[in-house]
Amino acid sequence: MINAVREWREALGEECVVGGGTANDRAETATFRTHQKIPLILRPRSREQVCEVVRIANRHGVPIYPVSSGRNWGYGSRVPVVSGCALIDLSGMKRIVDFNERLGYVTVQPGVTQKDLYNFLRAGKSKLWMDATGSSPDCSLIGNAMERGFGHTPYSDHFAQICALEVVLPNGEAINTGFSGLPSTRAGKVYRWGAGPSLDGLFSQSNFGIVTEMTIWLMPAPEYFQAFFFQSDREDGLAAIVDALRPLRMDGTLRSAIHIANDYKVLAGLQQFPQGETAPLRPERMIELRRRMKFTRWSGSGALYGTRAQVAEARRLLRGALKGAASTLKFLDDRMLSMAGRFTGLYRIATGLDLTRTLELVKPVYGLLRGVPTQQPLGSAYWRRSMPVPSDPDPDRDGCGLIWTAPVAPMEGEHAARLAGIVERRLLAHGFEPMISVTLLTERSIACVVSITYDREKPGEDDKAMECYFALQADLETEGYYSYRLATPALPEPAADNAYGRLLKSIRTALDPNDVLAPGRYVPRV
Amino acid sequence: MINAVREWREALGEECVVGGGTANDRAETATFRTHQKIPLILRPRSREQVCEVVRIANRHGVPIYPVSSGRNWGYGSRVPVVSGCALIDLSGMKRIVDFNERLGYVTVQPGVTQKDLYNFLRAGKSKLWMDATGSSPDCSLIGNAMERGFGHTPYSDHFAQICALEVVLPNGEAINTGFSGLPSTRAGKVYRWGAGPSLDGLFSQSNFGIVTEMTIWLMPAPEYFQAFFFQSDREDGLAAIVDALRPLRMDGTLRSAIHIANDYKVLAGLQQFPQGETAPLRPERMIELRRRMKFTRWSGSGALYGTRAQVAEARRLLRGALKGAASTLKFLDDRMLSMAGRFTGLYRIATGLDLTRTLELVKPVYGLLRGVPTQQPLGSAYWRRSMPVPSDPDPDRDGCGLIWTAPVAPMEGEHAARLAGIVERRLLAHGFEPMISVTLLTERSIACVVSITYDREKPGEDDKAMECYFALQADLETEGYYSYRLATPALPEPAADNAYGRLLKSIRTALDPNDVLAPGRYVPRV
Repeated sequence: MINAVREWREALGEECVVGGGTANDRAETATFRTHQKIPLILRPRSREQVCEVVRIANRHGVPIYPVSSGRNWGYGSRVPVVSGCALIDLSGMKRIVDFNERLGYVTVQPGVTQKDLYNFLRAGKSKLWMDATGSSPDCSLIGNAMERGFGHTPYSDHFAQICALEVVLPNGEAINTGFSGLPSTRAGKVYRWGAGPSLDGLFSQSNFGIVTEMTIWLMPAPEYFQAFFFQSDREDGLAAIVDALRPLRMDGTLRSAIHIANDYKVLAGLQQFPQGETAPLRPERMIELRRRMKFTRWSGSGALYGTRAQVAEARRLLRGALKGAASTLKFLDDRMLSMAGRFTGLYRIATGLDLTRTLELVKPVYGLLRGVPTQQPLGSAYWRRSMPVPSDPDPDRDGCGLIWTAPVAPMEGEHAARLAGIVERRLLAHGFEPMISVTLLTERSIACVVSITYDREKPGEDDKAMECYFALQADLETEGYYSYRLATPALPEPAADNAYGRLLKSIRTALDPNDVLAPGRYVPRV
Repeated sequence: MINAVREWREALGEECVVGGGTANDRAETATFRTHQKIPLILRPRSREQVCEVVRIANRHGVPIYPVSSGRNWGYGSRVPVVSGCALIDLSGMKRIVDFNERLGYVTVQPGVTQKDLYNFLRAGKSKLWMDATGSSPDCSLIGNAMERGFGHTPYSDHFAQICALEVVLPNGEAINTGFSGLPSTRAGKVYRWGAGPSLDGLFSQSNFGIVTEMTIWLMPAPEYFQAFFFQSDREDGLAAIVDALRPLRMDGTLRSAIHIANDYKVLAGLQQFPQGETAPLRPERMIELRRRMKFTRWSGSGALYGTRAQVAEARRLLRGALKGAASTLKFLDDRMLSMAGRFTGLYRIATGLDLTRTLELVKPVYGLLRGVPTQQPLGSAYWRRSMPVPSDPDPDRDGCGLIWTAPVAPMEGEHAARLAGIVERRLLAHGFEPMISVTLLTERSIACVVSITYDREKPGEDDKAMECYFALQADLETEGYYSYRLATPALPEPAADNAYGRLLKSIRTALDPNDVLAPGRYVPRV
């Protein structure tokens, strides 16, 4: 280790090799309990430096663990799978390397965040929209896409909208995927597959390389945009809604991910755990809260994109589909939003209701549906905390307990209902409020995003939450619902004792014989 | 080899191991000259038999080369990259393993052809449409998707619409990709990525495994379908059209691949090489033929899918976009087509023009735009042959010379025009008519499909065509336009002397240390 550190210092400069102290403590802290130690943080500033860092790691057999922004909240933040890894913090690589307005793409380094790209597009008066996850404006675009995160617009399946990866391999060599590495290449950033085997998938959710550059496709801003919001107060509303929307999602009328939240999720978006109530809030209690606070068992959001006529026709079809399945369906566009803003005072005088608060809640979702990053949803990580949500939320720092899992199922009402049932029962049994949202993720699949949210400062809760997580994973796997993404504690699982495990292990052994890069991450160890 | 043959006979039965004779001669014959010898043909009937075949090959170090239907016409048919491979003919594995009308997918084995799936959907009165390539109804669905072929509907990018591969690895073990191999799995056939690295791309255009099962997504038949046809007689029409259509392709108004053919391609669709003309037909001569036969420099086709209102709005936008870029734009739907069929006689009397012939030409394209396989485009492979197109075209058997290449470029008029110019100049210089079509392949990319079409029975033509192919590849690569798919003679090229080549080679070495499976195919040799 000592020799590696010396060489890293030489390669990066003293100031980019940080060892011991508060920086490490913070890096070792996630939104759930971890034991892994990080002896050192490395901050390379270029692809060449990343290559050099990897080569040094290999020479000395020291494991390394790359993170982009390190905000993999709910899945392990920046904490490595195993102890003793030097953390490679790529957040300093913040260049927007290339941009094409006409063809709609941007090429970024790992440190470029959702906010960075959003500001870049605004500053250039671009007519292109990005897609944003509801996690944090400070999330890395590369980090999220490589973990196959999703957002809210027609480009919501992030990994499906990227190409032309620049990857530093475990041997310290760099490659470019698809056509992007070929001399004088023209189509590398517009066509994904290239010629020969397509390798992009190999570098997502894995430890086969460090992605140092990626091209993201951006959607042209539509002539007209209209968000929609729907509700159902029926217990079986979720199944009816999923079945009602499936044909429109499959035929392309609905081009974006639709998100349907349960009552717990809505409540956690409105406020922190209500004072005076007993945890966990029981379903019977939720019925009363819903009635009092005027929200429903299920609440959904989505948006329509196109010309005015395209949106009008989609609206007609959506109305027809949700008739009977949802009790309310409201549409919202820029004009209505700005009018509502102007009339809140008048509205309050006339009706006694405060529209301002509603608008505050709707605006972030409305923004996400058009690719505007927001930190608002992050507030729900403070649900069980005694402190109020700060202006700069940081769940790692603030002792927020948060474990996410997101099982995938076919887009059918019966699966959605069964999934929701499994999750709600399991979380309540362990004393947690089951906050879930069901996302119509692709044309044929849904993901049920589950958050186990708790107070890390309350003794025993870390253990309770992790028990709940593993019990839930077991429930879900018994039923065949596997999560699209895993939290660090579930990662070192893939067994090498079946053909698939052996295949992954043989690729791993070929690419990283010293088991140096992010050991244990999604792939069996050498 | 002798021991391997004995074991193969034991494993498959005598009748499924064919050696010597006409079967081999036919298998060794492509649409261009090849020298590779095939000592043996193996016909496994199940995944287990495929595993056994591979294990035996490994034990004895005998190379094997799998084909599905073996109709990789223009790219090498069923001929292996190197000599001495036993051919694994998977065309006998013809099961449709699974089908789901509601979620729109079908799971097939390698022997299932476009025609098989089409008939299956019709027999079951399915409301789902498949996508078909214009190659042949007898093409394998798996073979085409794994070579990343494309068709005409919104599901035209075949490799983007499949998942859940069952793959026999070079070590004889079988795996399933994504979630599809997990116990009790639910989402394997509706969600592509699974958890952990996504491996599908690894098995396309490669020799890392034999795909024995694949799930294909199918599109719901739209309420209304309308094909459109447009023309431009201007030399610079192609660039104008590509630029005019790009915004509609990017914003989702045009959801399917649009194909734009040059005059040579149209003429080859109408008839064989015109008697009395001198080859190659010069551009000046084409102007006269166009005038006489009433076709234009550029002709395009595409289709609109949706409700009546969705199609009406798309039609309005398309009209607006093509105004000034195309000289004609005609729409065609089922009603118009059946009316036209009834009125051809009357039409001929009134105008003197024969509509029947036009309809005969339009119908196959109209069909392809709604996923109906056709053998009609295959007729153009007989362009230079002295025999007429038979009722059961088979370019391999009939001495049709055909080499395809398909360089990819950004979807911009200047690239389309430059590509077309390079191709037309190069083919004419070598004495071939340059038949090309430019496909608006994805939202941001075009592919220029080039066919070098000649008469294999004419002495010297095989050499001339191959010279032309390599000269064209060199032209294109100098300009940075790389083909999305390679013909066998160009395959053993990937060098292992750069980082990308070394990466492929190290994966190859890990998966297939004996270099047994399809040696040389897209991947450097061990």
